[in-house]
Amino acid sequence: MHARDGAVEMEVIPDVVLAIHGGAGTIVRENMSEEMDAHYRAALTEALEAGYSALMGGGDALDAVEAAIRPMEDSPLFNSGRGAVLNDEGEVELDASIMGGASGEAGAIAGARTPRHPITLARRVMTQSPHVLFAAEGADRFAENQEIETMEASWFVTPRRAKQLERMQARDREGTADLAGQPVDEKFGTVGCVALDADGHLAAGTSTGGMARKAFGRVGDSPLIGAGTWAADATCAVSCTGHGEFFIRLAIAHQLHARMLHGRQPLPLAAREAVLEDLPALGGSGGCVALGADGVLVAPFTTAGMYRGWVTRDGEITVRIHGDERR
Amino acid sequence: MHARDGAVEMEVIPDVVLAIHGGAGTIVRENMSEEMDAHYRAALTEALEAGYSALMGGGDALDAVEAAIRPMEDSPLFNSGRGAVLNDEGEVELDASIMGGASGEAGAIAGARTPRHPITLARRVMTQSPHVLFAAEGADRFAENQEIETMEASWFVTPRRAKQLERMQARDREGTADLAGQPVDEKFGTVGCVALDADGHLAAGTSTGGMARKAFGRVGDSPLIGAGTWAADATCAVSCTGHGEFFIRLAIAHQLHARMLHGRQPLPLAAREAVLEDLPALGGSGGCVALGADGVLVAPFTTAGMYRGWVTRDGEITVRIHGDERR
Repeated sequence: MHARDGAVEMEVIPDVVLAIHGGAGTIVRENMSEEMDAHYRAALTEALEAGYSALMGGGDALDAVEAAIRPMEDSPLFNSGRGAVLNDEGEVELDASIMGGASGEAGAIAGARTPRHPITLARRVMTQSPHVLFAAEGADRFAENQEIETMEASWFVTPRRAKQLERMQARDREGTADLAGQPVDEKFGTVGCVALDADGHLAAGTSTGGMARKAFGRVGDSPLIGAGTWAADATCAVSCTGHGEFFIRLAIAHQLHARMLHGRQPLPLAAREAVLEDLPALGGSGGCVALGADGVLVAPFTTAGMYRGWVTRDGEITVRIHGDERR
Repeated sequence: MHARDGAVEMEVIPDVVLAIHGGAGTIVRENMSEEMDAHYRAALTEALEAGYSALMGGGDALDAVEAAIRPMEDSPLFNSGRGAVLNDEGEVELDASIMGGASGEAGAIAGARTPRHPITLARRVMTQSPHVLFAAEGADRFAENQEIETMEASWFVTPRRAKQLERMQARDREGTADLAGQPVDEKFGTVGCVALDADGHLAAGTSTGGMARKAFGRVGDSPLIGAGTWAADATCAVSCTGHGEFFIRLAIAHQLHARMLHGRQPLPLAAREAVLEDLPALGGSGGCVALGADGVLVAPFTTAGMYRGWVTRDGEITVRIHGDERR
């Protein structure tokens, strides 16, 4: 009953130590050149290798999450860090969050404009402040205090995103589309990572530029602990991507945890009910990667595709883009 | 085993249609004059009457929540709207959120400086935007667009809060106290409301100035759906107050809902385990008001006192401050 695309409803993969996503949306083969396809797969592979290397080098789950997300933040292909979508005023507003499953500690930033690696700034909030979330100018000031790498606006804004904003604004002037009517792949593209380290500790992180042409100051689910990101060693680590408002209203990341902890649901059932049933029932779309404490990964999404990949314990890397790649 | 103050561990009251809190903290009798005590009880009563009037006048649960919170935002006694605590730079940063249990719709603002009634702005985000959360300048711009009542900084800053900040900064200069060492009642004081209307719909809302002397841009749990506020007709409506970072890391408001929905726990058990066990176990303190769809109210808190009150279906108003008023 739950099969999609005529195939399995979602990947359920055992023995995973690290998984990433690079956004869910209407990723359609005919709109993607072979060259772009190869670029995305290479970028996903690079991120997985970075995260796996961190684990192999003795890093913990939090180190691995940060290591995997940083190259995606540097890549103009994804909606995070460099290449983040632009708000209605042509500026980036960067959101990120990270949570460790061992201690339940968490850090997040929303609406920052300067950190080259928002995920690193989020981690600093976790480790170097008594707080969980800094917003807007407060996030940039904290970045300055922490002396983490910051960049000028010109570094973040790519020609692709500038053109995207122009196109969207032109459509609006012509009255041919409203925000809801825009192709989903122009709105989404968040990145995220979940990891399980040798000590059995889980971690999750998410980083995004939010929705293209969003209103100034809008905050989505990515920097919100419980909405876009969650990790608890007793259950799972989750990083979400999609139409953020619905992920907030359903507390999707925490919901997976709560279904497992209080409802005794196995992770695949929890993920199916939350992401493949509750989310579309409310009118939302998107997906997540969620990794159980037992190494079982699930990667559900309601959209045609989700950039995603994982590494198993023995180092085998898998990268997928389209829904029909599920076996 | 769970008794506190030599009395009951928390109030469990049937037939409630509306309840409020005005913050939890080390509210000690000897530090409170009879006059102040009377002021607080009068202000709580006024808020309860406003909320109950809204319900009796045919308003829904969301109307009642907004109606009860607005007078507390206007009162200099509470840490919200006028009389909100000041950040380290002597400014207010106002946070609020509201959620309706019928539709799961929600709205919130964080770090706003201008709305006279932050709860009303949060409700406008819910009803007049496709978004859930606006932060910092984005929240103030949205207030301007919506033409809701805004005020100058001088309206929000009361002599009491200015003195409080001065005192805290002086202590810091003298090296006699760090943030963690400050009396709890100087840091907390959030207001919130939960309501159940004649159609069986629940709603919850929370409004705060955050923590006194907080770092610029710090966002706590109050504007975060799932952390400080939650409502679902199937389970309960929750508004929290306390050390926000811990409420975020435990997703306390959504946790109560999830324990009921997925764990089949009755509300009193869910509230006890989340607020009276998990919260202090992590090192946090605070409380909440939570109203079940069956009209059962619980008001757990880990602190010496919590400003609180409720109205039963037949209009009987109860107001309490100290922990030892529990029967």
